[in-house]
Amino acid sequence: MAVEDPYPPSIPELLETSTPDDWREPDPAYTLYMELDSGRVVIELAPQFAPAHVEQIRTLARNGYWDGLSIYRVQDNFVAQFGDADAEEGTPQLPGAARQTLPAEFERSSEGLTFDPIPDTDGWAPESGFVDGFPAGRDPATGSAWLAHCYGNVGAGRGNPPDSSNGGELYVVIGHAPRTLDRDITSVGKVLQGIEHLSVLPRGPAPMGMYADRVEHTPIRSIRLASEVDKGERTSLEVLRTDTPLFARIVETRRNRRNEWVHRQADFIDLCNITVPVRLAEYGDGD
Amino acid sequence: MAVEDPYPPSIPELLETSTPDDWREPDPAYTLYMELDSGRVVIELAPQFAPAHVEQIRTLARNGYWDGLSIYRVQDNFVAQFGDADAEEGTPQLPGAARQTLPAEFERSSEGLTFDPIPDTDGWAPESGFVDGFPAGRDPATGSAWLAHCYGNVGAGRGNPPDSSNGGELYVVIGHAPRTLDRDITSVGKVLQGIEHLSVLPRGPAPMGMYADRVEHTPIRSIRLASEVDKGERTSLEVLRTDTPLFARIVETRRNRRNEWVHRQADFIDLCNITVPVRLAEYGDGD
Repeated sequence: MAVEDPYPPSIPELLETSTPDDWREPDPAYTLYMELDSGRVVIELAPQFAPAHVEQIRTLARNGYWDGLSIYRVQDNFVAQFGDADAEEGTPQLPGAARQTLPAEFERSSEGLTFDPIPDTDGWAPESGFVDGFPAGRDPATGSAWLAHCYGNVGAGRGNPPDSSNGGELYVVIGHAPRTLDRDITSVGKVLQGIEHLSVLPRGPAPMGMYADRVEHTPIRSIRLASEVDKGERTSLEVLRTDTPLFARIVETRRNRRNEWVHRQADFIDLCNITVPVRLAEYGDGD
Repeated sequence: MAVEDPYPPSIPELLETSTPDDWREPDPAYTLYMELDSGRVVIELAPQFAPAHVEQIRTLARNGYWDGLSIYRVQDNFVAQFGDADAEEGTPQLPGAARQTLPAEFERSSEGLTFDPIPDTDGWAPESGFVDGFPAGRDPATGSAWLAHCYGNVGAGRGNPPDSSNGGELYVVIGHAPRTLDRDITSVGKVLQGIEHLSVLPRGPAPMGMYADRVEHTPIRSIRLASEVDKGERTSLEVLRTDTPLFARIVETRRNRRNEWVHRQADFIDLCNITVPVRLAEYGDGD
Protein backbone atom coordinates (compact mmCIF):
# COMPACT_ATOMS: atom_id res chain seq x y z
CA MET A 1 0.00 0.00 0.00
CA ALA A 2 1.38 3.35 -0.99
CA VAL A 3 1.97 5.87 1.74
CA GLU A 4 -0.41 8.78 1.31
CA ASP A 5 1.21 12.13 0.65
CA PRO A 6 0.40 14.12 3.79
CA TYR A 7 0.95 17.47 2.14
CA PRO A 8 -1.38 19.70 0.15
CA PRO A 9 -0.52 20.39 -3.48
CA SER A 10 2.56 22.48 -4.16
CA ILE A 11 2.34 25.52 -6.41
CA PRO A 12 3.60 23.57 -9.46
CA GLU A 13 1.01 20.89 -8.68
CA LEU A 14 -1.71 23.52 -8.38
CA LEU A 15 -0.67 24.99 -11.73
CA GLU A 16 -1.00 21.57 -13.31
CA THR A 17 -4.69 21.69 -12.38
CA SER A 18 -5.19 25.04 -14.12
CA THR A 19 -7.55 25.40 -17.04
CA PRO A 20 -7.12 27.77 -19.99
CA ASP A 21 -9.51 30.19 -18.29
CA ASP A 22 -7.05 30.61 -15.43
CA TRP A 23 -4.61 32.33 -17.78
CA ARG A 24 -4.68 35.53 -19.75
CA GLU A 25 -2.60 36.75 -22.67
CA PRO A 26 -1.08 40.19 -22.18
CA ASP A 27 -2.09 42.61 -24.92
CA PRO A 28 0.76 42.86 -27.47
CA ALA A 29 -0.09 46.52 -27.96
CA TYR A 30 0.80 47.09 -24.30
CA THR A 31 3.82 44.79 -24.10
CA LEU A 32 7.40 45.96 -24.59
CA TYR A 33 10.33 43.92 -25.80
CA MET A 34 13.64 45.31 -24.65
CA GLU A 35 16.36 43.68 -26.71
CA LEU A 36 19.82 43.44 -25.15
CA ASP A 37 22.86 41.59 -26.42
CA SER A 38 22.12 39.01 -23.71
CA GLY A 39 18.47 38.54 -24.63
CA ARG A 40 14.96 39.89 -24.37
CA VAL A 41 13.22 41.52 -21.41
CA VAL A 42 9.42 41.42 -21.68
CA ILE A 43 7.52 44.21 -19.91
CA GLU A 44 3.76 44.45 -19.50
CA LEU A 45 2.49 48.02 -19.38
CA ALA A 46 -0.28 49.17 -17.04
CA PRO A 47 -2.35 51.80 -18.85
CA GLN A 48 -5.07 51.44 -16.22
CA PHE A 49 -2.65 53.07 -13.72
CA ALA A 50 -0.56 55.39 -15.88
CA PRO A 51 -2.46 56.17 -19.09
CA ALA A 52 -0.44 59.23 -20.07
CA HIS A 53 2.92 57.57 -19.39
CA VAL A 54 1.95 54.42 -21.19
CA GLU A 55 0.77 56.32 -24.27
CA GLN A 56 4.07 58.23 -24.26
CA ILE A 57 6.07 55.01 -23.88
CA ARG A 58 4.17 53.49 -26.79
CA THR A 59 4.95 56.57 -28.87
CA LEU A 60 8.61 56.41 -27.92
CA ALA A 61 8.81 52.70 -28.74
CA ARG A 62 7.11 53.20 -32.10
CA ASN A 63 9.66 55.87 -32.91
CA GLY A 64 12.65 53.77 -31.88
CA TYR A 65 13.54 56.25 -29.14
CA TRP A 66 15.54 53.80 -27.02
CA ASP A 67 17.33 52.06 -29.88
CA GLY A 68 21.03 52.62 -29.34
CA LEU A 69 20.51 54.18 -25.91
CA SER A 70 21.67 52.36 -22.79
CA ILE A 71 21.28 51.11 -19.26
CA TYR A 72 23.39 53.70 -17.50
CA ARG A 73 22.60 53.09 -13.84
CA VAL A 74 22.54 49.85 -11.87
CA GLN A 75 22.37 50.28 -8.12
CA ASP A 76 22.75 47.12 -6.09
CA ASN A 77 19.59 46.03 -4.26
CA PHE A 78 17.63 48.83 -5.91
CA VAL A 79 17.18 49.52 -9.63
CA ALA A 80 18.51 49.20 -13.17
CA GLN A 81 17.73 52.41 -15.04
CA PHE A 82 17.83 53.06 -18.76
CA GLY A 83 17.19 55.73 -21.33
CA ASP A 84 19.24 58.65 -22.56
CA ALA A 85 22.40 58.95 -20.47
CA ASP A 86 22.76 62.53 -21.69
CA ALA A 87 19.21 63.56 -20.87
CA GLU A 88 20.16 65.69 -17.91
CA GLU A 89 22.64 67.68 -19.94
CA GLY A 90 20.04 69.31 -22.13
CA THR A 91 16.60 69.05 -23.56
CA PRO A 92 15.95 65.40 -24.36
CA GLN A 93 15.64 64.68 -28.06
CA LEU A 94 12.17 63.20 -28.00
CA PRO A 95 10.37 62.39 -31.21
CA GLY A 96 7.93 65.03 -32.41
CA ALA A 97 4.77 63.26 -31.32
CA ALA A 98 6.00 62.89 -27.75
CA ARG A 99 5.25 65.21 -24.83
CA GLN A 100 8.11 66.92 -23.03
CA THR A 101 6.68 66.21 -19.58
CA LEU A 102 3.87 64.08 -18.26
CA PRO A 103 1.43 64.45 -15.39
CA ALA A 104 2.14 62.65 -12.13
CA GLU A 105 0.32 59.32 -12.19
CA PHE A 106 1.30 58.19 -8.71
CA GLU A 107 -2.10 56.82 -7.79
CA ARG A 108 -5.64 56.76 -9.17
CA SER A 109 -9.20 56.17 -8.07
CA SER A 110 -9.80 52.53 -7.27
CA GLU A 111 -13.19 52.77 -8.95
CA GLY A 112 -13.49 50.60 -12.00
CA LEU A 113 -10.56 48.37 -10.97
CA THR A 114 -10.92 44.75 -9.96
CA PHE A 115 -8.83 44.51 -6.82
CA ASP A 116 -7.98 40.98 -5.70
CA PRO A 117 -6.91 41.37 -2.07
CA ILE A 118 -4.49 39.07 -0.31
CA PRO A 119 -5.32 38.20 3.30
CA ASP A 120 -2.39 40.15 4.77
CA THR A 121 -1.56 43.80 5.15
CA ASP A 122 1.46 45.74 6.27
CA GLY A 123 2.34 49.36 6.86
CA TRP A 124 2.80 50.16 3.18
CA ALA A 125 -0.89 50.04 2.29
CA PRO A 126 -4.23 49.58 4.08
CA GLU A 127 -5.02 46.82 1.58
CA SER A 128 -2.63 44.72 -0.50
CA GLY A 129 -3.53 42.73 -3.56
CA PHE A 130 -3.45 42.50 -7.31
CA VAL A 131 -5.07 44.44 -10.12
CA ASP A 132 -4.95 42.65 -13.47
CA GLY A 133 -1.93 40.75 -12.20
CA PHE A 134 0.00 43.78 -10.98
CA PRO A 135 0.81 43.97 -7.26
CA ALA A 136 -1.00 46.98 -5.87
CA GLY A 137 -2.10 48.83 -2.78
CA ARG A 138 -5.52 50.29 -2.08
CA ASP A 139 -6.83 52.70 0.51
CA PRO A 140 -10.58 52.48 1.12
CA ALA A 141 -10.45 55.74 3.11
CA THR A 142 -9.23 57.79 0.17
CA GLY A 143 -10.62 55.56 -2.58
CA SER A 144 -7.24 55.35 -4.28
CA ALA A 145 -5.14 52.52 -5.67
CA TRP A 146 -1.54 52.34 -6.85
CA LEU A 147 1.08 49.97 -8.19
CA ALA A 148 3.49 48.54 -5.61
CA HIS A 149 7.25 48.74 -6.02
CA CYS A 150 7.87 45.01 -5.95
CA TYR A 151 10.75 43.21 -7.65
CA GLY A 152 10.30 43.72 -11.40
CA ASN A 153 8.21 46.88 -11.10
CA VAL A 154 8.94 49.35 -13.91
CA GLY A 155 8.74 53.05 -13.09
CA ALA A 156 9.41 56.36 -14.78
CA GLY A 157 12.27 58.42 -13.41
CA ARG A 158 11.49 62.04 -12.67
CA GLY A 159 13.15 65.21 -11.46
CA ASN A 160 12.01 67.04 -8.34
CA PRO A 161 8.63 68.26 -9.62
CA PRO A 162 5.98 65.51 -9.62
CA ASP A 163 5.16 66.20 -13.27
CA SER A 164 8.74 66.22 -14.54
CA SER A 165 8.87 62.74 -16.05
CA ASN A 166 9.00 62.37 -19.81
CA GLY A 167 8.58 58.59 -19.80
CA GLY A 168 11.94 58.05 -21.47
CA GLU A 169 13.97 57.28 -18.35
CA LEU A 170 12.65 54.03 -16.95
CA TYR A 171 13.85 51.87 -14.07
CA VAL A 172 13.27 48.29 -13.06
CA VAL A 173 13.36 47.21 -9.40
CA ILE A 174 16.08 44.55 -8.98
CA GLY A 175 16.28 44.36 -5.19
CA HIS A 176 14.25 44.36 -2.02
CA ALA A 177 11.03 46.22 -2.72
CA PRO A 178 11.57 49.99 -2.22
CA ARG A 179 7.95 50.54 -1.28
CA THR A 180 8.71 54.01 0.03
CA LEU A 181 8.52 55.04 -3.64
CA ASP A 182 4.88 53.93 -3.84
CA ARG A 183 2.60 56.89 -4.49
CA ASP A 184 5.57 59.20 -5.04
CA ILE A 185 6.58 58.28 -8.59
CA THR A 186 4.78 56.83 -11.59
CA SER A 187 4.91 53.07 -12.07
CA VAL A 188 4.17 52.02 -15.62
CA GLY A 189 4.23 48.22 -15.58
CA LYS A 190 6.28 45.20 -14.64
CA VAL A 191 8.72 42.70 -16.09
CA LEU A 192 7.08 39.43 -17.11
CA GLN A 193 10.17 37.62 -18.33
CA GLY A 194 13.92 38.14 -18.69
CA ILE A 195 14.60 40.27 -15.61
CA GLU A 196 17.79 38.26 -15.12
CA HIS A 197 19.26 40.17 -18.05
CA LEU A 198 19.04 43.25 -15.82
CA SER A 199 19.65 41.83 -12.36
CA VAL A 200 23.07 40.42 -13.30
CA LEU A 201 24.45 43.65 -14.73
CA PRO A 202 27.57 45.04 -13.06
CA ARG A 203 26.71 47.49 -10.34
CA GLY A 204 27.67 51.11 -10.67
CA PRO A 205 29.45 52.77 -7.74
CA ALA A 206 27.66 53.91 -4.60
CA PRO A 207 25.61 55.81 -3.71
CA MET A 208 23.52 55.98 -6.89
CA GLY A 209 24.89 53.25 -9.12
CA MET A 210 25.57 55.63 -12.01
CA TYR A 211 28.48 54.23 -13.99
CA ALA A 212 31.51 56.48 -13.97
CA ASP A 213 32.45 55.60 -17.54
CA ARG A 214 30.22 55.26 -20.58
CA VAL A 215 32.02 52.10 -21.66
CA GLU A 216 30.29 50.41 -18.72
CA HIS A 217 26.84 51.22 -20.07
CA THR A 218 24.85 48.30 -21.42
CA PRO A 219 23.62 49.11 -24.92
CA ILE A 220 19.95 48.71 -25.76
CA ARG A 221 19.52 47.24 -29.23
CA SER A 222 15.89 48.25 -29.36
CA ILE A 223 12.65 48.56 -27.44
CA ARG A 224 9.55 47.65 -29.45
CA LEU A 225 5.89 47.08 -28.82
CA ALA A 226 5.19 43.37 -29.21
CA SER A 227 2.36 44.31 -31.57
CA GLU A 228 4.93 45.81 -33.94
CA VAL A 229 7.11 42.69 -33.97
CA ASP A 230 6.42 39.90 -36.47
CA LYS A 231 4.30 37.22 -34.86
CA GLY A 232 6.99 34.62 -35.41
CA GLU A 233 9.43 36.73 -33.41
CA ARG A 234 7.16 37.32 -30.43
CA THR A 235 7.47 35.75 -27.00
CA SER A 236 3.91 34.59 -26.46
CA LEU A 237 3.33 34.53 -22.74
CA GLU A 238 0.39 33.71 -20.57
CA VAL A 239 0.00 35.18 -17.11
CA LEU A 240 -2.03 33.54 -14.38
CA ARG A 241 -5.16 35.51 -13.61
CA THR A 242 -5.24 36.87 -10.07
CA ASP A 243 -9.04 36.98 -9.76
CA THR A 244 -9.49 33.22 -9.58
CA PRO A 245 -9.89 30.61 -6.81
CA LEU A 246 -6.70 28.98 -8.12
CA PHE A 247 -4.66 32.12 -7.51
CA ALA A 248 -6.13 32.46 -4.02
CA ARG A 249 -4.96 28.90 -3.32
CA ILE A 250 -1.49 29.77 -4.58
CA VAL A 251 -1.36 32.75 -2.23
CA GLU A 252 -2.45 30.56 0.66
CA THR A 253 0.20 27.99 -0.30
CA ARG A 254 2.80 30.76 -0.04
CA ARG A 255 1.39 32.00 3.27
CA ASN A 256 1.47 28.59 4.91
CA ARG A 257 3.97 26.36 3.22
CA ARG A 258 3.48 22.69 3.93
CA ASN A 259 5.93 20.15 2.63
CA GLU A 260 8.60 17.80 3.92
CA TRP A 261 11.16 20.60 4.20
CA VAL A 262 9.04 23.18 6.02
CA HIS A 263 8.66 22.92 9.79
CA ARG A 264 6.97 26.20 10.55
CA GLN A 265 4.09 28.02 8.89
CA ALA A 266 4.33 31.79 8.77
CA ASP A 267 0.60 32.42 8.32
CA PHE A 268 1.61 35.58 6.52
CA ILE A 269 2.92 36.68 3.17
CA ASP A 270 4.38 39.94 2.00
CA LEU A 271 2.72 41.20 -1.19
CA CYS A 272 6.11 41.35 -2.92
CA ASN A 273 6.89 37.73 -2.05
CA ILE A 274 4.05 36.57 -4.28
CA THR A 275 5.11 35.76 -7.80
CA VAL A 276 2.36 35.72 -10.39
CA PRO A 277 3.08 32.68 -12.58
CA VAL A 278 3.96 33.27 -16.23
CA ARG A 279 4.34 30.57 -18.89
CA LEU A 280 4.97 30.31 -22.59
CA ALA A 281 1.68 30.17 -24.43
CA GLU A 282 2.80 26.93 -26.09
CA TYR A 283 2.58 25.27 -22.68
CA GLY A 284 -1.18 25.19 -22.95
CA ASP A 285 -1.20 23.53 -26.34
CA GLY A 286 -0.47 20.09 -25.03
CA ASP A 287 3.16 19.73 -26.04
CA MET B 1 20.57 86.41 2.41
CA ALA B 2 20.92 82.69 1.93
CA VAL B 3 17.74 80.68 1.67
CA GLU B 4 17.46 78.37 4.64
CA ASP B 5 17.46 74.67 3.82
CA PRO B 6 13.94 73.59 4.77
CA TYR B 7 14.85 69.92 5.05
CA PRO B 8 16.21 67.90 7.95
CA PRO B 9 19.64 66.29 7.58
CA SER B 10 19.97 63.49 5.06
CA ILE B 11 21.47 60.17 6.11
CA PRO B 12 24.93 61.12 4.75
CA GLU B 13 24.67 64.40 6.66
CA LEU B 14 23.68 62.55 9.82
CA LEU B 15 26.65 60.23 9.40
CA GLU B 16 28.93 63.23 9.17
CA THR B 17 27.85 64.12 12.70
CA SER B 18 28.79 60.69 14.03
CA THR B 19 31.46 60.25 16.66
CA PRO B 20 33.81 57.28 16.99
CA ASP B 21 31.52 55.88 19.69
CA ASP B 22 28.74 55.52 17.12
CA TRP B 23 30.76 52.85 15.32
CA ARG B 24 31.97 49.40 16.20
CA GLU B 25 34.61 47.17 14.67
CA PRO B 26 33.45 43.66 13.87
CA ASP B 27 35.54 41.01 15.59
CA PRO B 28 38.06 39.60 13.07
CA ALA B 29 37.72 36.19 14.71
CA TYR B 30 34.06 36.23 13.65
CA THR B 31 34.48 37.78 10.23
CA LEU B 32 34.84 35.78 7.01
CA TYR B 33 36.60 36.83 3.84
CA MET B 34 35.29 35.01 0.80
CA GLU B 35 37.77 35.53 -2.03
CA LEU B 36 36.44 35.31 -5.57
CA ASP B 37 38.21 36.14 -8.81
CA SER B 38 36.12 39.32 -8.87
CA GLY B 39 36.96 40.40 -5.33
CA ARG B 40 36.27 39.95 -1.62
CA VAL B 41 32.96 39.39 0.14
CA VAL B 42 33.09 40.28 3.86
CA ILE B 43 30.69 38.40 6.12
CA GLU B 44 30.07 39.08 9.80
CA LEU B 45 29.11 35.99 11.77
CA ALA B 46 26.47 36.00 14.50
CA PRO B 47 27.56 33.57 17.23
CA GLN B 48 24.95 35.06 19.56
CA PHE B 49 22.27 33.50 17.33
CA ALA B 50 23.96 30.38 15.96
CA PRO B 51 26.81 29.36 18.26
CA ALA B 52 27.18 25.80 16.99
CA HIS B 53 27.01 26.78 13.33
CA VAL B 54 29.44 29.64 13.79
CA GLU B 55 31.97 27.44 15.58
CA GLN B 56 31.67 24.89 12.77
CA ILE B 57 32.09 27.59 10.12
CA ARG B 58 35.18 28.87 11.89
CA THR B 59 36.57 25.33 11.96
CA LEU B 60 35.82 24.86 8.28
CA ALA B 61 37.43 28.19 7.38
CA ARG B 62 40.55 27.39 9.43
CA ASN B 63 40.83 24.10 7.58
CA GLY B 64 40.42 25.67 4.14
CA TYR B 65 37.24 23.68 3.56
CA TRP B 66 35.79 26.00 0.92
CA ASP B 67 39.04 26.67 -0.93
CA GLY B 68 38.52 25.43 -4.47
CA LEU B 69 34.82 24.77 -3.95
CA SER B 70 32.23 26.92 -5.72
CA ILE B 71 29.06 28.93 -5.92
CA TYR B 72 26.85 26.34 -7.59
CA ARG B 73 23.39 27.87 -7.27
CA VAL B 74 22.18 31.37 -8.04
CA GLN B 75 18.43 31.79 -8.11
CA ASP B 76 17.16 35.13 -9.32
CA ASN B 77 15.50 37.24 -6.63
CA PHE B 78 16.42 34.68 -3.99
CA VAL B 79 19.88 33.34 -3.08
CA ALA B 80 23.44 32.62 -4.14
CA GLN B 81 24.53 29.35 -2.55
CA PHE B 82 28.01 27.94 -2.19
CA GLY B 83 29.90 25.00 -0.80
CA ASP B 84 30.52 21.49 -2.07
CA ALA B 85 28.54 20.95 -5.27
CA ASP B 86 28.94 17.20 -4.76
CA ALA B 87 27.78 17.18 -1.15
CA GLU B 88 24.44 15.58 -1.89
CA GLU B 89 26.04 12.71 -3.73
CA GLY B 90 27.74 11.27 -0.69
CA THR B 91 29.08 11.96 2.74
CA PRO B 92 30.63 15.42 2.69
CA GLN B 93 34.36 15.43 3.15
CA LEU B 94 34.49 17.60 6.22
CA PRO B 95 37.74 18.10 8.08
CA GLY B 96 38.23 15.87 11.10
CA ALA B 97 37.46 18.50 13.71
CA ALA B 98 34.10 19.32 12.13
CA ARG B 99 30.73 17.87 13.10
CA GLN B 100 28.70 15.98 10.52
CA THR B 101 25.45 17.68 11.47
CA LEU B 102 24.51 20.61 13.64
CA PRO B 103 21.53 21.40 15.84
CA ALA B 104 18.79 23.63 14.49
CA GLU B 105 19.51 27.20 15.58
CA PHE B 106 16.42 28.79 14.08
CA GLU B 107 15.70 31.03 17.06
CA ARG B 108 16.89 31.60 20.60
CA SER B 109 15.82 33.16 23.86
CA SER B 110 15.82 36.93 23.62
CA GLU B 111 17.27 37.11 27.12
CA GLY B 112 20.72 38.61 27.20
CA LEU B 113 20.32 40.30 23.81
CA THR B 114 20.12 44.03 23.34
CA PHE B 115 17.20 44.46 20.97
CA ASP B 116 16.93 47.87 19.32
CA PRO B 117 13.35 48.02 18.05
CA ILE B 118 12.24 50.03 15.06
CA PRO B 119 8.88 51.79 15.35
CA ASP B 120 7.14 49.59 12.79
CA THR B 121 6.01 46.02 12.68
CA ASP B 122 4.59 43.71 10.06
CA GLY B 123 3.25 40.21 9.90
CA TRP B 124 6.67 38.58 9.94
CA ALA B 125 7.42 39.32 13.58
CA PRO B 126 5.65 40.88 16.58
CA GLU B 127 8.67 43.17 16.99
CA SER B 128 11.25 44.20 14.42
CA GLY B 129 14.63 45.66 15.16
CA PHE B 130 18.34 45.07 15.36
CA VAL B 131 20.59 43.00 17.59
CA ASP B 132 24.24 43.99 17.38
CA GLY B 133 23.56 45.40 13.93
CA PHE B 134 21.77 42.33 12.60
CA PRO B 135 18.14 42.74 11.50
CA ALA B 136 16.06 40.56 13.78
CA GLY B 137 12.60 39.69 14.97
CA ARG B 138 11.43 39.21 18.52
CA ASP B 139 8.32 37.73 20.08
CA PRO B 140 7.61 38.90 23.64
CA ALA B 141 4.97 36.19 24.00
CA THR B 142 7.43 33.35 23.50
CA GLY B 143 10.54 35.19 24.64
CA SER B 144 12.39 34.30 21.46
CA ALA B 145 14.45 36.25 18.93
CA TRP B 146 15.79 35.37 15.50
CA LEU B 147 17.73 36.77 12.58
CA ALA B 148 15.63 38.14 9.71
CA HIS B 149 16.14 37.03 6.11
CA CYS B 150 16.92 40.46 4.73
CA TYR B 151 19.08 41.19 1.70
CA GLY B 152 22.62 40.02 2.56
CA ASN B 153 21.54 37.55 5.23
CA VAL B 154 23.75 34.45 5.29
CA GLY B 155 22.12 31.14 6.17
CA ALA B 156 23.05 27.48 6.35
CA GLY B 157 21.39 25.16 3.87
CA ARG B 158 19.83 22.04 5.32
CA GLY B 159 18.01 18.90 4.25
CA ASN B 160 14.53 18.05 5.47
CA PRO B 161 15.37 17.38 9.13
CA PRO B 162 15.86 20.59 11.14
CA ASP B 163 19.23 19.36 12.39
CA SER B 164 20.61 18.27 9.02
CA SER B 165 22.85 21.25 8.29
CA ASN B 166 26.62 20.80 8.43
CA GLY B 167 27.42 24.49 8.06
CA GLY B 168 29.30 23.93 4.82
CA GLU B 169 26.51 24.85 2.40
CA LEU B 170 25.81 28.53 2.89
CA TYR B 171 23.53 30.92 1.03
CA VAL B 172 23.32 34.67 0.76
CA VAL B 173 20.01 36.44 0.14
CA ILE B 174 20.29 38.46 -3.10
CA GLY B 175 16.64 39.37 -3.65
CA HIS B 176 13.48 40.49 -1.95
CA ALA B 177 13.62 39.28 1.63
CA PRO B 178 12.34 35.67 1.83
CA ARG B 179 11.14 36.14 5.39
CA THR B 180 9.13 32.95 5.26
CA LEU B 181 12.46 31.23 5.98
CA ASP B 182 12.76 33.06 9.32
CA ARG B 183 12.65 30.60 12.21
CA ASP B 184 12.79 27.64 9.82
CA ILE B 185 16.48 27.55 8.96
CA THR B 186 19.65 28.71 10.68
CA SER B 187 20.96 32.17 9.83
CA VAL B 188 24.63 32.60 10.64
CA GLY B 189 25.44 36.21 9.79
CA LYS B 190 25.28 38.83 7.09
CA VAL B 191 27.33 40.36 4.31
CA LEU B 192 28.99 43.63 5.32
CA GLN B 193 30.70 44.42 2.03
CA GLY B 194 31.09 43.02 -1.48
CA ILE B 195 27.65 41.48 -1.97
CA GLU B 196 27.72 42.80 -5.55
CA HIS B 197 30.23 40.04 -6.32
CA LEU B 198 27.37 37.63 -5.66
CA SER B 199 24.32 39.56 -6.85
CA VAL B 200 25.69 39.95 -10.39
CA LEU B 201 26.43 36.26 -10.94
CA PRO B 202 24.63 34.60 -13.84
CA ARG B 203 21.39 33.03 -12.72
CA GLY B 204 20.94 29.30 -12.89
CA PRO B 205 17.82 27.92 -14.53
CA ALA B 206 14.42 27.87 -12.82
CA PRO B 207 13.06 26.70 -10.51
CA MET B 208 16.03 26.35 -8.14
CA GLY B 209 18.87 28.19 -9.86
CA MET B 210 21.18 25.16 -9.79
CA TYR B 211 23.53 25.44 -12.74
CA ALA B 212 23.13 22.64 -15.23
CA ASP B 213 26.85 22.53 -16.01
CA ARG B 214 29.80 22.72 -13.64
CA VAL B 215 31.61 25.12 -15.95
CA GLU B 216 29.06 27.71 -14.89
CA HIS B 217 30.04 27.41 -11.23
CA THR B 218 31.91 30.37 -9.79
CA PRO B 219 35.10 29.14 -8.12
CA ILE B 220 35.86 30.15 -4.55
CA ARG B 221 39.54 30.93 -4.14
CA SER B 222 39.29 30.74 -0.37
CA ILE B 223 37.24 31.56 2.68
CA ARG B 224 39.29 32.69 5.67
CA LEU B 225 38.65 34.18 9.07
CA ALA B 226 39.82 37.78 9.02
CA SER B 227 41.82 37.02 12.16
CA GLU B 228 43.89 34.53 10.18
CA VAL B 229 44.69 37.02 7.43
CA ASP B 230 47.72 39.31 7.71
CA LYS B 231 46.66 42.68 9.10
CA GLY B 232 47.88 44.44 5.99
CA GLU B 233 45.56 42.29 3.87
CA ARG B 234 42.45 42.87 5.95
CA THR B 235 39.46 45.00 5.03
CA SER B 236 39.04 47.00 8.20
CA LEU B 237 35.40 47.97 8.44
CA GLU B 238 33.37 49.85 10.96
CA VAL B 239 29.65 49.26 11.34
CA LEU B 240 27.28 51.85 12.74
CA ARG B 241 25.95 50.81 16.12
CA THR B 242 22.22 50.26 16.16
CA ASP B 243 21.73 51.07 19.86
CA THR B 244 22.37 54.78 19.50
CA PRO B 245 20.24 57.93 19.12
CA LEU B 246 22.01 58.50 15.79
CA PHE B 247 20.79 55.20 14.40
CA ALA B 248 17.27 55.92 15.60
CA ARG B 249 17.41 59.20 13.67
CA ILE B 250 18.58 57.35 10.57
CA VAL B 251 15.65 54.95 10.85
CA GLU B 252 13.26 57.90 11.21
CA THR B 253 14.88 59.55 8.18
CA ARG B 254 14.11 56.40 6.20
CA ARG B 255 10.55 56.22 7.54
CA ASN B 256 9.73 59.77 6.61
CA ARG B 257 11.97 61.01 3.86
CA ARG B 258 12.07 64.77 3.51
CA ASN B 259 13.99 66.38 0.70
CA GLU B 260 13.35 68.29 -2.48
CA TRP B 261 12.57 65.12 -4.43
CA VAL B 262 10.14 63.50 -1.99
CA HIS B 263 6.50 64.61 -1.99
CA ARG B 264 4.96 62.02 0.27
CA GLN B 265 6.07 60.57 3.59
CA ALA B 266 5.35 56.90 4.15
CA ASP B 267 5.51 57.04 7.95
CA PHE B 268 6.60 53.41 7.77
CA ILE B 269 9.67 51.39 7.03
CA ASP B 270 10.17 47.71 6.39
CA LEU B 271 12.93 46.22 8.55
CA CYS B 272 14.69 44.96 5.43
CA ASN B 273 14.68 48.41 3.84
CA ILE B 274 17.00 49.70 6.56
CA THR B 275 20.67 49.49 5.66
CA VAL B 276 23.09 49.61 8.56
CA PRO B 277 25.92 51.90 7.42
CA VAL B 278 29.38 50.38 7.00
CA ARG B 279 32.58 52.30 6.32
CA LEU B 280 36.26 51.66 5.96
CA ALA B 281 37.97 52.13 9.30
CA GLU B 282 40.38 54.62 7.72
CA TYR B 283 37.44 56.97 7.31
CA GLY B 284 37.54 57.74 11.00
CA ASP B 285 41.22 58.62 11.03
CA GLY B 286 40.73 62.04 9.54
CA ASP B 287 42.03 61.44 6.04
